Amino acid sequence: MARLNIENINQHIVEAKYAVRGELAVKSEEYRAKLKKGEGKDLPFSEVISANIGNPQQLDQKPITFFRQVLSLLENPKLLAHEDVLVKSLDYKVDVLERARWLLSNVGSVGAYSASAGVPAIKGSVAKFLERRDGFKADPAHIYLSAGASSGVNTLLHILCAAPNSGILVPIPQYPLYTASLAVLNATCVPYYLDEAANWGTSLATIKEAYESAKSAGTDVRAIVIINPGNPTGASLSAADIKSVLDFAAQEKLVVMADEVYQTNVFVGEFTSFRQVLLEQQKEKPGKYDSVELASLHSISKGMVGECGHRGGYFDLIGFKPEVEEQIYKFVSITLCAPVIGQCLVEMMVNPPKKGDPSFPLYEQEFSGIFEGLKKRASALYDAFKKMDGVECGEPQGSMYLFPTIHVPAKAAEAAQKEGRSPDEFYCMRLLEATGVCVVPGSGFGQKEGSLHFRTTFLAPGTEWVGSITKFHQEFMDNYR
Amino acid sequence: MARLNIENINQHIVEAKYAVRGELAVKSEEYRAKLKKGEGKDLPFSEVISANIGNPQQLDQKPITFFRQVLSLLENPKLLAHEDVLVKSLDYKVDVLERARWLLSNVGSVGAYSASAGVPAIKGSVAKFLERRDGFKADPAHIYLSAGASSGVNTLLHILCAAPNSGILVPIPQYPLYTASLAVLNATCVPYYLDEAANWGTSLATIKEAYESAKSAGTDVRAIVIINPGNPTGASLSAADIKSVLDFAAQEKLVVMADEVYQTNVFVGEFTSFRQVLLEQQKEKPGKYDSVELASLHSISKGMVGECGHRGGYFDLIGFKPEVEEQIYKFVSITLCAPVIGQCLVEMMVNPPKKGDPSFPLYEQEFSGIFEGLKKRASALYDAFKKMDGVECGEPQGSMYLFPTIHVPAKAAEAAQKEGRSPDEFYCMRLLEATGVCVVPGSGFGQKEGSLHFRTTFLAPGTEWVGSITKFHQEFMDNYR
Repeated sequence: MARLNIENINQHIVEAKYAVRGELAVKSEEYRAKLKKGEGKDLPFSEVISANIGNPQQLDQKPITFFRQVLSLLENPKLLAHEDVLVKSLDYKVDVLERARWLLSNVGSVGAYSASAGVPAIKGSVAKFLERRDGFKADPAHIYLSAGASSGVNTLLHILCAAPNSGILVPIPQYPLYTASLAVLNATCVPYYLDEAANWGTSLATIKEAYESAKSAGTDVRAIVIINPGNPTGASLSAADIKSVLDFAAQEKLVVMADEVYQTNVFVGEFTSFRQVLLEQQKEKPGKYDSVELASLHSISKGMVGECGHRGGYFDLIGFKPEVEEQIYKFVSITLCAPVIGQCLVEMMVNPPKKGDPSFPLYEQEFSGIFEGLKKRASALYDAFKKMDGVECGEPQGSMYLFPTIHVPAKAAEAAQKEGRSPDEFYCMRLLEATGVCVVPGSGFGQKEGSLHFRTTFLAPGTEWVGSITKFHQEFMDNYR
Repeated sequence: MARLNIENINQHIVEAKYAVRGELAVKSEEYRAKLKKGEGKDLPFSEVISANIGNPQQLDQKPITFFRQVLSLLENPKLLAHEDVLVKSLDYKVDVLERARWLLSNVGSVGAYSASAGVPAIKGSVAKFLERRDGFKADPAHIYLSAGASSGVNTLLHILCAAPNSGILVPIPQYPLYTASLAVLNATCVPYYLDEAANWGTSLATIKEAYESAKSAGTDVRAIVIINPGNPTGASLSAADIKSVLDFAAQEKLVVMADEVYQTNVFVGEFTSFRQVLLEQQKEKPGKYDSVELASLHSISKGMVGECGHRGGYFDLIGFKPEVEEQIYKFVSITLCAPVIGQCLVEMMVNPPKKGDPSFPLYEQEFSGIFEGLKKRASALYDAFKKMDGVECGEPQGSMYLFPTIHVPAKAAEAAQKEGRSPDEFYCMRLLEATGVCVVPGSGFGQKEGSLHFRTTFLAPGTEWVGSITKFHQEFMDNYR
């Protein structure tokens, strides 16, 4: 055959779009490298702000001390022979040592492969967490530790997508992992729009409409993805909304994929899990929900943990047939196992120091410090957006993002077209060039025809960068008015 | 649709086979759990020996001290404020601290996502390693850090497989990652047999034959996989053999995937990289090899590093068009990045302490201790196989495995058939039940019609388990004679 080229390689990869790390991200990294080398004198900014990725520790978020102390002992268990030094000179509390010993007794070496679906004792801790959170017993046999939630999503979509007409209902706007993975798998994305006017809530009528129209177009709709709290929107669903999604899934025999990685990033309302509502309903109305298949995903990358680089997460299955779980097991075994250090972080996320434990006071202080810090930054950014001409933004509800609407002048849309860009891409590119602030155009997540947005994290410290967005925006508007 | 079942899920996953962690492995884990709970009184063994997976640290191999000391500091950088305590009370040398500081200055937090293709400075270290190893400059821009070599293989096969008739030449016997991934991708595996009589060497005539016959059957053969040193065979290819594969690839415009994860596990002969031979040839005969596309893979899971659980590795590309590399970049960016701690281990693997560094003496002692230990164990196992009636085994050459041929009596083959198993599966199942030793049947890797093998690692300590295999084998043969 000919050398590999854009036309003869796997076209499903060529078709996949993943804006979060696309052209803008690449350009921002080039700026960063230039500045690092001291070559950025000609740039109108002195720092690149990566507001495009929910990557807390790249910016200002510090890791939780308890977690990292335990990890240091897991990496170098020889330190455990120096208990005295650790406690007296290095400020390690005894519960840090205990946790490390317990994990090592179950993991062996963190340098060894674990069982394919994860270390059994860690799956046990996840089960206990689910019991505490939801009030219903959980079975570790149906818990799978994964390399972040992304890898869990990849596994589940691989199992679900059997043919090009296999369809998955995906919220729009959405985290582009879903559309990108479906493109790679050559399956059908069935978009349903979230309701911006209702704080990006889920409308069952819209879901039904999307479902019916896909069905009549010949799509075999197999599952519905719910991102709760939402990414990029931050919205948390009420128990009633969750129930209505489950009712619909039960009626149409759809698998429910509940992406709940932002479950602790909630400022407005509270997080209710799909698992809890499903198990409550199963108890209340025996029989009606027996056939519902629910996969819930969680991650160490978000929340106050923010340990993205360690690639840890899990998914929990309810209602899947054993013959299907066998295939899931086989699929995950081909990639051997999730990173073991990431698995250990999952254990600590679901089983953090408790009141009365020596490490608890610092843990609590760090945890709530991060939470309050995020809330404050979200508000500051929101306040800035409110003041901007041509920008509309809902109140921050959770997750790590704001997703404002922008209205750009017609001239800007024309200029964008000349560059072969959508107007939101054009806006974000100019923003990056002028300020060093990297955000993601709304088209990367999907948006209603005719509406324009961008997604920004509120993770970056300080207010200077917010000011630079305000200033840029004013100039942009004046320029193209 | 109906609930998910074995018939309506993705059939390509159902078709994939992955024996390394299949039925035998699952059963062995059940035994292990039983023994751990103290419930194994009825079992004829007191310990499960996992000789099915190349998982050094699950067994006896200790991690390299330098690596783990650095990792402990990366996980808890606050320790670096206590240089005195580290050096005087905890035996950390100054080069450990220096390395940790250097890595942190380039990585930031190990809890942050890195750039999609890996931390630039770590790719720089890999490039320097390739230069030292092969004598030719390397460009970090074409190096991609991955979650073990498996994830690199997954990426490359995703790009290569464009249609069901996209074919990849795969050695048989092989590590089943290749056949399993090709099954999942719905592409065509084009097997070529290695020559057991010539110490499992690569025969170009056999490769050509496989290629031509696939081509005439309508397969669009796109790449050739070479596992060098071999898994499960341990064989190292000579520079001449490598050259002949490259010649063939150049002539037929095949991408070469060189899986070189066992490059330091070599007892007989020496490792020569595909990269070195290709660059030598390009220099010697300008033009002739310009179109060759080579992807070389390496991993922290094998060798004297043995850090499987940390999921680290890289692949390096030569001759790929920029438009293709762009798609590779996009594909890896969808899974965000390889585990950052694993990336740091890659850095230390390719840039270990050097002569004169304070950590060098211990590093060298540990490294050669592991190497010699593996060699001794391989010999002991080989000696045992030589003495067994009905077993033939080549001299250990490298990697972590022996792959003996077994000749079982006709009655055993009949008994196997009654159980619906192949004779080698039957043999391995009986071995597990009788001794607690878990090996993988040759059919899991592929073997010539009519021949039977099993693969065993030589990682387990002691000689007791070897004795138990010998005893079992004798009884098995007597039983079915």
